[in-house]
Amino acid sequence: MSVPSVYRAAQATAAGGPFEIVERAVAQPGPGHVRVAVDACGICHSDALFVDAALPGVRFPVVPGHEIAGRIAELGEGTQNAWQVGDRVAVGWFGGSCGHCTPCRRGDFMVCVNLKVPGWAYDGGYAESVTVPADALARIPDALAAADAAPIGCAGVTTYNGLRRSAARPGDLVAVLGIGGLGHLGVQYAAAMGFETVAIARGAAKADFAQELGAHHYVDSTADTGVADALQALGGARVVLATAANSAAITATVEGLAPRGELVVIGADAEPLGISPNQLLMSGKVVRGHPSGTAQDVQETLAFSALHGIRPMTETVPLEGAEEAYRKMLSGAARFRMVLTTA
Amino acid sequence: MSVPSVYRAAQATAAGGPFEIVERAVAQPGPGHVRVAVDACGICHSDALFVDAALPGVRFPVVPGHEIAGRIAELGEGTQNAWQVGDRVAVGWFGGSCGHCTPCRRGDFMVCVNLKVPGWAYDGGYAESVTVPADALARIPDALAAADAAPIGCAGVTTYNGLRRSAARPGDLVAVLGIGGLGHLGVQYAAAMGFETVAIARGAAKADFAQELGAHHYVDSTADTGVADALQALGGARVVLATAANSAAITATVEGLAPRGELVVIGADAEPLGISPNQLLMSGKVVRGHPSGTAQDVQETLAFSALHGIRPMTETVPLEGAEEAYRKMLSGAARFRMVLTTA
Amino acid sequence: MSVPSVYRAAQATAAGGPFEIVERAVAQPGPGHVRVAVDACGICHSDALFVDAALPGVRFPVVPGHEIAGRIAELGEGTQNAWQVGDRVAVGWFGGSCGHCTPCRRGDFMVCVNLKVPGWAYDGGYAESVTVPADALARIPDALAAADAAPIGCAGVTTYNGLRRSAARPGDLVAVLGIGGLGHLGVQYAAAMGFETVAIARGAAKADFAQELGAHHYVDSTADTGVADALQALGGARVVLATAANSAAITATVEGLAPRGELVVIGADAEPLGISPNQLLMSGKVVRGHPSGTAQDVQETLAFSALHGIRPMTETVPLEGAEEAYRKMLSGAARFRMVLTTA
Amino acid sequence: MSVPSVYRAAQATAAGGPFEIVERAVAQPGPGHVRVAVDACGICHSDALFVDAALPGVRFPVVPGHEIAGRIAELGEGTQNAWQVGDRVAVGWFGGSCGHCTPCRRGDFMVCVNLKVPGWAYDGGYAESVTVPADALARIPDALAAADAAPIGCAGVTTYNGLRRSAARPGDLVAVLGIGGLGHLGVQYAAAMGFETVAIARGAAKADFAQELGAHHYVDSTADTGVADALQALGGARVVLATAANSAAITATVEGLAPRGELVVIGADAEPLGISPNQLLMSGKVVRGHPSGTAQDVQETLAFSALHGIRPMTETVPLEGAEEAYRKMLSGAARFRMVLTTA
Repeated sequence: MSVPSVYRAAQATAAGGPFEIVERAVAQPGPGHVRVAVDACGICHSDALFVDAALPGVRFPVVPGHEIAGRIAELGEGTQNAWQVGDRVAVGWFGGSCGHCTPCRRGDFMVCVNLKVPGWAYDGGYAESVTVPADALARIPDALAAADAAPIGCAGVTTYNGLRRSAARPGDLVAVLGIGGLGHLGVQYAAAMGFETVAIARGAAKADFAQELGAHHYVDSTADTGVADALQALGGARVVLATAANSAAITATVEGLAPRGELVVIGADAEPLGISPNQLLMSGKVVRGHPSGTAQDVQETLAFSALHGIRPMTETVPLEGAEEAYRKMLSGAARFRMVLTTA
Repeated sequence: MSVPSVYRAAQATAAGGPFEIVERAVAQPGPGHVRVAVDACGICHSDALFVDAALPGVRFPVVPGHEIAGRIAELGEGTQNAWQVGDRVAVGWFGGSCGHCTPCRRGDFMVCVNLKVPGWAYDGGYAESVTVPADALARIPDALAAADAAPIGCAGVTTYNGLRRSAARPGDLVAVLGIGGLGHLGVQYAAAMGFETVAIARGAAKADFAQELGAHHYVDSTADTGVADALQALGGARVVLATAANSAAITATVEGLAPRGELVVIGADAEPLGISPNQLLMSGKVVRGHPSGTAQDVQETLAFSALHGIRPMTETVPLEGAEEAYRKMLSGAARFRMVLTTA
Repeated sequence: MSVPSVYRAAQATAAGGPFEIVERAVAQPGPGHVRVAVDACGICHSDALFVDAALPGVRFPVVPGHEIAGRIAELGEGTQNAWQVGDRVAVGWFGGSCGHCTPCRRGDFMVCVNLKVPGWAYDGGYAESVTVPADALARIPDALAAADAAPIGCAGVTTYNGLRRSAARPGDLVAVLGIGGLGHLGVQYAAAMGFETVAIARGAAKADFAQELGAHHYVDSTADTGVADALQALGGARVVLATAANSAAITATVEGLAPRGELVVIGADAEPLGISPNQLLMSGKVVRGHPSGTAQDVQETLAFSALHGIRPMTETVPLEGAEEAYRKMLSGAARFRMVLTTA
Repeated sequence: MSVPSVYRAAQATAAGGPFEIVERAVAQPGPGHVRVAVDACGICHSDALFVDAALPGVRFPVVPGHEIAGRIAELGEGTQNAWQVGDRVAVGWFGGSCGHCTPCRRGDFMVCVNLKVPGWAYDGGYAESVTVPADALARIPDALAAADAAPIGCAGVTTYNGLRRSAARPGDLVAVLGIGGLGHLGVQYAAAMGFETVAIARGAAKADFAQELGAHHYVDSTADTGVADALQALGGARVVLATAANSAAITATVEGLAPRGELVVIGADAEPLGISPNQLLMSGKVVRGHPSGTAQDVQETLAFSALHGIRPMTETVPLEGAEEAYRKMLSGAARFRMVLTTA
């Protein structure tokens, strides 16, 4: 692999954008780091947290992008024991952990109190090149194209991991709330895990699509029968995976849980859930926040996707179209993941 | 044991009371049931749910009481294989399950959809005699007096079970919110389980009492440092056991949880908790409703209490004082469990 | 449904058989019991434990059979709340529990110390009619024929339950040792649960069959590469489900487990496993005995089988051929479950 | 802290020893490493694995010692964010992990396939100075003296961790097999965790000692009543923690487990356990190997020991007495942990 001296990146120079394409000098990766030649990078709604400087510590210019798929281009010191130039790798929301906080010392890297997210802690994947800590790397199986692997680093692992770490066991009734960017993967994963799978979305029109994804049942959340009653009519959900970033919609599912049912929340919202102790107590219900997954989790999600033929639905756009693609994602018109590609 | 023909009971003939002492005829227990001569019965705040007809299905006159300790006086058909006349037994909030709903068939009796609560499903323990299904019975160890055993059937098992079924392991930081009727037992249990135990209550004055109960730390929830910050200063709680029936107070503890921390809610409140997805997501936090415990759980709580010398703090009153004792409980002046006794 | 006055049964009058077909008078079911008109009954290798009087308490004549599928013909007292005449039901190895031992009081019926097994505790399903406790009943979904449902009550639930209760999570490498009566179901279940599934059996010839069942990999246990090495070459097994009733074959898989791997033993053998502390210690390995499943577990296995199109491979024989069918099962020539049917 | 230029160490120059005291030059710790001034180092039976070259990769001279307590003397590059010179630290059997094998990437460092054990992977703690990877460090609370902290890095954490990670919950019957170097700590931990604690050892004479350690029951394994029967008379053990390095003694406890009981093996032995599938199947029993604990586990064990006043019983010897102390440990005469100290 010849080493280029510059790479292109899409950066926002101020809060809110727009993105401009710039050239940057290629730098050698430091100890414990690797440089990755980016083949594809998904555009995730949470990129807006950094582009809009909604989280602390954001400094402009910002190169977002935490759904990265590419090939290792250069190895920093101390990474040769585990990785080789040319290895196909993905980097997701988990962009490395500090190694010395209490969660890290317990091996629970995902809740590292100093978690590094690409596009926040360092320049992300809206670029031809990205340099990341080696502990952020996940291997991509041959069967997965880069554009398919990229969104699995965040949308994929979050739903896959949320489901496999939930209280549900094969055969249990599992509902996925929302069949957008996260949910359309969640339904596929749930079905492949042997759950009796329910998709919940707005409007009757999505029933066929839900079935194509593998759902055994479809619940229209706008129907007169509320979501909770519809779930109870199916026996009550063991788990609801709430991909919708909407506290009201999430709350509406609680009474649809079976006794001991678990509401796994992966959709962000600052609004309080409207759930009372009385709704949880007698029936032993649980509300669980689920924080995506580590690099190893991403690797396992990629492997699972390859094994079971699961793919995100993507719309690919060349890197120079980042501005337009980002706006389309924000508008909600993407079906379902916008992915930037390099030539 | 001679069989009396009548027994006295304290009943409310209309919503809200007052209680009157009446005589009732002793009846033979039906199949699968036993008659228990009551020695002591705790007065629990949740008795008011039935006395005030706040739950569906309440019919007057009501004899409340689900913290019962006594001796078996008569065995119904089919109970002789497991029980004998004279056995010392307790009956708590769990007053029997249906046996054929899905949770029952899975062995999870506590979330039986037809759960029988003494004082609701049938006449309770504010009486000299009570007849209950045999599956509601828990054995009382010799070391425990009836008046001490009684409150363990509800206040005791709820806290003990909530703690031992929580995510906490010995050595973890566990906070008990509230040191009233439930919490003063919760703190004792937490300490005996090897947790690094924090008591949280209102005012600086209770610090000494908390320490006597076994707490290693005390947090005054009215201090300028909020509860969450105080817990974080101790390292963050692995588990908060929320005994306070107050959604606002419960919500105030969430940010005091460590990553992956678990808020175990045992205090009832119809008000929504003010917890957002964003508070749970990244740190993988959990809110869990915990529904007391079965007869076997009560039996294990009694055994644990005997083994470790744990007792409720009670104020005993003869049965005929039920009205006054009930009002004292309602007023919040009880320190900490009012217990009715028969001669 | 007209009520016949007699029914035919295949009974062994002395240890080892042979079976003779006899007529017996139909009796009314007692309290808590139901009479089931048998449509099909699987012949399980463990029937020999009773026919040969290898377990204590066997009394002749013996009517074995604990893989029963039929319809409810008559309800005993106290069963009407949950069941109706005509309900299609299965009864497996779990033929009822005592309700008052400690495991039962904890809801763990499967390890009831007084467990009732059909064909041992009472006359089993090699008959046109069988009377069982209501807690032994599992509902059969419409999609499943009686002859397919029958073996699921033992061979099916044992493998399904062993897998879903194991430490494996979707995507993990799970090996099924043996693809006979139990294993050919285990492989199908493992694949439908989303595991990366390995089938282990004797000889290269079964590789194609294993793949048809859904296995992703096949290991020939007679090949020069040992089973353990073959599993390690695949990354190490998270779980081995040992269906082979052969301690030596089971032991040979231990070194094929990944760190923290779990060997789930469902195949019976009185010979000690040859596993040392040193094989388990450093890598945190686990050997777990798994005892089939309750009636509710059977019901969930039936539902899972219907949802995912999983069926046992059976050879059906009319009830009067019981003797011949039983001998064929003993010989190991059955492919894979012999099932007796009534007209 | 002044930096000495040499340090003394006790080394074996050939398999089996003897130990000689040598002077070595102090070297600067490399990146990610720290130099620790050793205050105390326990002598563990597993040191013999290295001294006798019973494990692969041992090279002479050998300085054993993996129960180290001391103070940080010098920080290598990249360790300053988490540690300071002067910090009191312990290093146990877990001497660091590779960070890139699959278990490490999953955060399960303890089963790292390249686990570094002090005295094997690098020179251990029979010395005035030792240099270790920073991820091997555990903080020592002020309340614990170095000589008490040292054995907790192996004997302590192994028993504490084995118990808290077991299936037992507070109140359960937990038996500790052996009350020697590991067991005398295990009994103390079990009692402090709220278990109903049984100590099992050879001979009636140890009953009083077991009670002093906190055991509620004592079982003499040489009595006519076998160990299994004695445990069953107490209700059956939920967990047996097998500290005895003796497969026959371990096997003798299996029938003393309650249904679903768990045998946690921490004592090493190359002899097979004599446990058959039939002993595990019906009752759902489990045999689990438990591999000590990580540096964070050691830190939590130290904190637990400080909180609950638990201490190993030790016999301290100056470093120059290493040879004699090691032989005493081998002879089994130590009561219970030999600890080398520096002036």
